[in-house]
Amino acid sequence: MDLNSDLGESFGAWRMGDDGTILSLVSSANVACGFHAGDPLTMLETCRRAVAGSVRIGAHVSYRDLAGFGRRAMDIGPVELYGDVLYQLSALDGIARTAGGKVDYVKPHGALYNRIAHDRGQARAVCSAVQDFGRRRSLALPMLGLPGSVIADECRTAGLPFFGEAFVDRGYLADGTLIPRGQPGDLLVNVDDIAPRAVRMARERTVLARDGALIRLDVHSLCVHGDTPGAAAMAAAVRAALAGAGVPVESFC
Amino acid sequence: MDLNSDLGESFGAWRMGDDGTILSLVSSANVACGFHAGDPLTMLETCRRAVAGSVRIGAHVSYRDLAGFGRRAMDIGPVELYGDVLYQLSALDGIARTAGGKVDYVKPHGALYNRIAHDRGQARAVCSAVQDFGRRRSLALPMLGLPGSVIADECRTAGLPFFGEAFVDRGYLADGTLIPRGQPGDLLVNVDDIAPRAVRMARERTVLARDGALIRLDVHSLCVHGDTPGAAAMAAAVRAALAGAGVPVESFC
Amino acid sequence: MDLNSDLGESFGAWRMGDDGTILSLVSSANVACGFHAGDPLTMLETCRRAVAGSVRIGAHVSYRDLAGFGRRAMDIGPVELYGDVLYQLSALDGIARTAGGKVDYVKPHGALYNRIAHDRGQARAVCSAVQDFGRRRSLALPMLGLPGSVIADECRTAGLPFFGEAFVDRGYLADGTLIPRGQPGDLLVNVDDIAPRAVRMARERTVLARDGALIRLDVHSLCVHGDTPGAAAMAAAVRAALAGAGVPVESFC
Amino acid sequence: MDLNSDLGESFGAWRMGDDGTILSLVSSANVACGFHAGDPLTMLETCRRAVAGSVRIGAHVSYRDLAGFGRRAMDIGPVELYGDVLYQLSALDGIARTAGGKVDYVKPHGALYNRIAHDRGQARAVCSAVQDFGRRRSLALPMLGLPGSVIADECRTAGLPFFGEAFVDRGYLADGTLIPRGQPGDLLVNVDDIAPRAVRMARERTVLARDGALIRLDVHSLCVHGDTPGAAAMAAAVRAALAGAGVPVESFC
Repeated sequence: MDLNSDLGESFGAWRMGDDGTILSLVSSANVACGFHAGDPLTMLETCRRAVAGSVRIGAHVSYRDLAGFGRRAMDIGPVELYGDVLYQLSALDGIARTAGGKVDYVKPHGALYNRIAHDRGQARAVCSAVQDFGRRRSLALPMLGLPGSVIADECRTAGLPFFGEAFVDRGYLADGTLIPRGQPGDLLVNVDDIAPRAVRMARERTVLARDGALIRLDVHSLCVHGDTPGAAAMAAAVRAALAGAGVPVESFC
Repeated sequence: MDLNSDLGESFGAWRMGDDGTILSLVSSANVACGFHAGDPLTMLETCRRAVAGSVRIGAHVSYRDLAGFGRRAMDIGPVELYGDVLYQLSALDGIARTAGGKVDYVKPHGALYNRIAHDRGQARAVCSAVQDFGRRRSLALPMLGLPGSVIADECRTAGLPFFGEAFVDRGYLADGTLIPRGQPGDLLVNVDDIAPRAVRMARERTVLARDGALIRLDVHSLCVHGDTPGAAAMAAAVRAALAGAGVPVESFC
Repeated sequence: MDLNSDLGESFGAWRMGDDGTILSLVSSANVACGFHAGDPLTMLETCRRAVAGSVRIGAHVSYRDLAGFGRRAMDIGPVELYGDVLYQLSALDGIARTAGGKVDYVKPHGALYNRIAHDRGQARAVCSAVQDFGRRRSLALPMLGLPGSVIADECRTAGLPFFGEAFVDRGYLADGTLIPRGQPGDLLVNVDDIAPRAVRMARERTVLARDGALIRLDVHSLCVHGDTPGAAAMAAAVRAALAGAGVPVESFC
Repeated sequence: MDLNSDLGESFGAWRMGDDGTILSLVSSANVACGFHAGDPLTMLETCRRAVAGSVRIGAHVSYRDLAGFGRRAMDIGPVELYGDVLYQLSALDGIARTAGGKVDYVKPHGALYNRIAHDRGQARAVCSAVQDFGRRRSLALPMLGLPGSVIADECRTAGLPFFGEAFVDRGYLADGTLIPRGQPGDLLVNVDDIAPRAVRMARERTVLARDGALIRLDVHSLCVHGDTPGAAAMAAAVRAALAGAGVPVESFC
């Protein structure tokens, strides 16, 4: 099972997250590309560490929204979105290659992630940029996203490998979608709940929904957060629990 | 002799320059990379046109300064400058490759161009980024800049090919440097003066300085402006004059 | 009848619109505040000209989106939107006062304008910022917007004067809303159609909808565009037609 | 003696400083205005807290440089700098007034602070903006800066009150200037050294320079940092030491 986390989210003088520790725990790093976070040096340093630790590098592409950290959905046209994804993907790939690695996959960030789970036009634009970026390099970059969503569907159409992820500390509804933030049960904070849940997600591909239903998740990666206090401790607990259950942590790609 | 011009300097709703016409006249396009100008779609469109017209693509890297169009020198540290150059170079190269081309050379823009003509620390940082970007790709990207300046020197040290350029419509001092903007003779506007001057630059590698001295310029490219009214007409006149004098227009790289 | 136009939409090296001419024709200037366009000097110069020409100054507040020119709707939370409006309003008012004027009214820009015509949460946030800005100054700044829309409603609730505007060159549906851009009849381009239409809007408060219905518009201002080629000519024609029909052009506030 | 500190330097999702604690210790808050840090809500919240705590509000105006946190000197022309200062000052003043306060003084930030200590053109541009902003409001906003520097001189010429400040934790050279960062003795970290030093600065207007010379400082305010770990503890120690020495902490304006 893959473990992924959002990394490289500092910007200039502003620091975010305990990247060093998280990078020692995950197998895939979603690296910010400058549009919601991630100045060039942070990107470079994150890629260097990822390469050094044999962690896969994902392009954490976002709406252009530093002030909102990419958390605000935008009604951006498909052509503009295509350009924005291509730019970020290119910037990170060039930096990753300079650090001895490369972009291994794409995981849209924040509001874009949520939007393309249901907005076909934007999902298609993201796929199209990833596809065209790969075509000249004879590669089909895999995408990481919400299982069973529109972006999964569009990846299939575009011939891009898609991998689903689950969130170890987010509550789920019976239909397999996340409990919206702000509603009861949206966020789990107790490591003693989260660690065994992660193991179940990894071994059985299931999660207990809010209403008690056991739902199936087509999951190839578990997402652990990197930017909250206690994030590193939780990631460590999840990793230890997986190890204890005999689940190896390795990248999906 | 190469003809180069600054292109792709639109940003979002703001248009700048008659890129279509200029691209049909030059052999090298200095393409803005998003830090002083150049949104992703403009970059992509400019690269597509350059590829279609067999025009070489240069990374027109800049200080991060959209509000000042990269025309304001910044006391940026070498590590940060290295990162900024690497980011822009990567972004444009990825986009250019998606368009079927690649970054063929680097030409720093505006205030950065002028600064690295004399600031060794910043010149070295730019070289270092270009060098490291190329190393993994087993290429040494050439740099276009002011002949005889510190950046030329640093390129030599770094093992990067350096090519000097002259400005067909800028006045020169006897020491081969440009007459600072705002001083008498800084800018030539009469095509009848500029065209024969360009021919002399191309054929004899000389230019008449303000004080009447004939100075040598180690020039491999002539820069024609793209963003002023009449820019296209001037570029056309220069190109025609070179043709009339039997000087082929072809890229230096 | 008031004539309003979007002005001060240049940014740094990028110029937009023929502000000098438009300012001599309108009674109200919607001045960009830096979030979709409008650098500080452009704002100052526009305010100076407006003051000199006795043109009212409107804060043309926008989503924070230079790259998209404020034309992309954003799912921004009400508190953040409140802050963004307050910031822009404050910046322009300070600059306007330095130029001898003040902000006389508020007209949201682009995607925000359209969004608050139907999104009650965002409309309320905009009202709240305008209200709180005015409270300490013992003034209730009027808002200019789409007649009969949610923002009109929210202004009433908030105790802010609301004034409706019509677009002289946009097509209308029978329900009084605009024909969406890209659909047939969305934009009128012929001055011979537009000028008499403007007169009818001013004198009768009516407009002929696409299906031939004559609809009533509660209109206190006519919007003429400033950023298209021919904008100044159209504004001049509208002004002349109003004069010919005996309709004085004067601000609504 | 006044105690001042840089506050409101968060931006969007990025937090910086322990503003709540610092605000309870200082008499003057230098509030970021959006160009190096400080989103609108952070500005508003900082102003509200300052008003609640009877802390004076200073406009911490900066070069436009979010990526560099305003720490990189820029060769910006005086007219552009004038505009940038006016914009920031206006934005903060409007927000402060909405919070029940107002901008009480101006303290340029970071690289601009250092630049105008010796660059007359930029110093004059800053003064001019502050002067023009105040003129219409019949007030002359005081400026806080380096004693004995060019900006002090220019304030005098412009008729603006100038107040000098000393840094409780920075080393001084014998000529009264700061030991450049990175050189030995640039920064004091031991509270046991800093607290008595602050008392001496406040009571005797003197500081011990690196070479042992006792130098006079024309100081009306002591600057305590807000953005480093331990900043709040140091500020508290300084405040306690001043209290112990019978020096009341009160704003200079």
